[in-house]
Amino acid sequence: MTVPDAALDRAIASIAALGPLDARAMVAAREIVDGLTKPPGSLGRLEWLAIWLAGVTGQPRATVRHRAIVVAAADHGVTRRGVSAYPSEVTAQMVRNFLDGGAAINVLASRVGASVTVLDVGVAGDIPGSAPGEGGRGGRLVERRVRAGTDDFTVGPAMSRSEATAAIAVGLAVVKELIDEGTELIGIGEMGIGNTTAASAVTAAMTGADAATVTGFGTGIDDEARARKIGVVERALELHRPEPTDPIGVLAAVGGLEIGALAGIILGAVGARIPVVLDGFITGSAALLAHGFAPAVAPRMLAAHRSQEPGHRVVLDRLGLEPLLTLDLRLGEGTGAALAIGLVDAALAIRDGMATFASASVSGPTGSPVA
Amino acid sequence: MTVPDAALDRAIASIAALGPLDARAMVAAREIVDGLTKPPGSLGRLEWLAIWLAGVTGQPRATVRHRAIVVAAADHGVTRRGVSAYPSEVTAQMVRNFLDGGAAINVLASRVGASVTVLDVGVAGDIPGSAPGEGGRGGRLVERRVRAGTDDFTVGPAMSRSEATAAIAVGLAVVKELIDEGTELIGIGEMGIGNTTAASAVTAAMTGADAATVTGFGTGIDDEARARKIGVVERALELHRPEPTDPIGVLAAVGGLEIGALAGIILGAVGARIPVVLDGFITGSAALLAHGFAPAVAPRMLAAHRSQEPGHRVVLDRLGLEPLLTLDLRLGEGTGAALAIGLVDAALAIRDGMATFASASVSGPTGSPVA
Repeated sequence: MTVPDAALDRAIASIAALGPLDARAMVAAREIVDGLTKPPGSLGRLEWLAIWLAGVTGQPRATVRHRAIVVAAADHGVTRRGVSAYPSEVTAQMVRNFLDGGAAINVLASRVGASVTVLDVGVAGDIPGSAPGEGGRGGRLVERRVRAGTDDFTVGPAMSRSEATAAIAVGLAVVKELIDEGTELIGIGEMGIGNTTAASAVTAAMTGADAATVTGFGTGIDDEARARKIGVVERALELHRPEPTDPIGVLAAVGGLEIGALAGIILGAVGARIPVVLDGFITGSAALLAHGFAPAVAPRMLAAHRSQEPGHRVVLDRLGLEPLLTLDLRLGEGTGAALAIGLVDAALAIRDGMATFASASVSGPTGSPVA
Repeated sequence: MTVPDAALDRAIASIAALGPLDARAMVAAREIVDGLTKPPGSLGRLEWLAIWLAGVTGQPRATVRHRAIVVAAADHGVTRRGVSAYPSEVTAQMVRNFLDGGAAINVLASRVGASVTVLDVGVAGDIPGSAPGEGGRGGRLVERRVRAGTDDFTVGPAMSRSEATAAIAVGLAVVKELIDEGTELIGIGEMGIGNTTAASAVTAAMTGADAATVTGFGTGIDDEARARKIGVVERALELHRPEPTDPIGVLAAVGGLEIGALAGIILGAVGARIPVVLDGFITGSAALLAHGFAPAVAPRMLAAHRSQEPGHRVVLDRLGLEPLLTLDLRLGEGTGAALAIGLVDAALAIRDGMATFASASVSGPTGSPVA
């Protein structure tokens, strides 16, 4: 079960060498935050965010000025089983929309000054020609198609092991380019009609959870279609019996090309001490795979939100992550990640912009309250 | 129990005349949002925010360009009972900090382009002279002190009924000025050492909940101080037996001047169809009073977050409000409201900035999924 890819081996080794979060940087960040004119801890998770960033980066005043959101896109052969409310061609159409700046992720990434990189790692059809653009908000297309969509994993593996490894390698390469360009924070998102089905199968395989527990309504199917989707996931697990100790095997059997690329992005970013902001269920399933390769990734990822997909709770529990937001999102694309980056910015604005007790001549707590 | 104040009577009458949220505007807003390139409902509470704003304002494309956060400040005689971790003089010191731009609310309001109005409706001491400023972020001071802090409500009423009415009238007047200046969205916050004790007593009085259920750790007291604080609330309720049908009486008996002003701000804003963004527990107790005067305020308020204070859950349940954020905040000042305004902005950016299925040539859902 060794993985025949040098880049992946290097990423796993880098992560293993990281050790725990940087305690010295976290103590220093805590001291900064506790000196600000507010009761200690009273800004809750905003304070935690500033301290967490210190732990991941090793910098008490970590900065995240250059931030990138990567939207990995691919198609899924399993869509022929009637598991999605939308036809497969929507994947390519939405890639076009990302490039033209008209999608939700473009709007939300723009609000936090994040670039949008659209990674075609396995879209099935051609990306349509340009529609009227929305100005400068459009994403940049990176074409690294490993293959044109997966096969139907209810009758055979979604892809070969070497294709699975190639998808991960694409993610590693793309994140390396972004980091080399100066990116300090990576948000991830995805687009792929049918990919909640793959994410459900990956989550079940990696955690042992039942298909019914991890399978939801995706983009908005009805109860009958959901029952069919649960059956599809059960059949795939029965057919492949994927082993959680072999994440490449899980990805090849029941995964998706974008899920593999996202796992690679996570591994590459974490290995370089760059914090990663997850989005919803599909990015979470990629995080489970990354965690399967290198358990130390878990505390270095930020769970942006808790999605409406029931499997997302299973993912977050397994990774020990507490989501920042619960806004009943189920769109994907990185939309939750973009919103969470806004909270990261708020946390750092607090850290850097508030007065201290000393500078503002505000009294601290009394030793013990006057009775 | 009639209220001898013409402005309050007018506000209550305006709210009674509003009727339910504007269904026609909400349907129109829902149509706009459903035409965007995403599965219907997939942006969850961001979509709900756009529709809710339409319902409150009557405008399918409601705008909230001019937004103001009012931080009402006052002192509390009950602090002599050892209910807070901080001495009373911190209230005036923090008012100075708000004016100088060094507090958390300054940082977070600045991020969403909200002005900060610091309303001194009952601070006990002088506001200290200026400290070195933080630039253009400082708040504007509005001096409308009804009295210099309340009395200790464990031995007598916090204030007289006429002072309670005057505090509400201050809020009504200040919000009218802000609306006359073009404010389209009001966020509220507060500062007042001891005011979680008053908020606990008000919440218990208005909802019938036990003192222990609604009394927490405030700015960070220990278990012993919290036990004392619960006893203080119990004693006050025993002494005054305030009636929830008489919100003026509740405010006078166990409230605070800033809580009264905040209730006035809510009533004035809602009566003018201006959406109100609540903050945490203290603003929530003011919302309970406003709700006691005019039940139709409830669906016109946005619950920004669920605070760590246990009484806040009781408040939100009573008002039927679901908070947007759960970030373990317990600072007050309007910090949660400012963060929530960022989500309102995200919701309206989505509404106004995304492509439609038609403009982007993206396919809609298939009638029924292909089997």
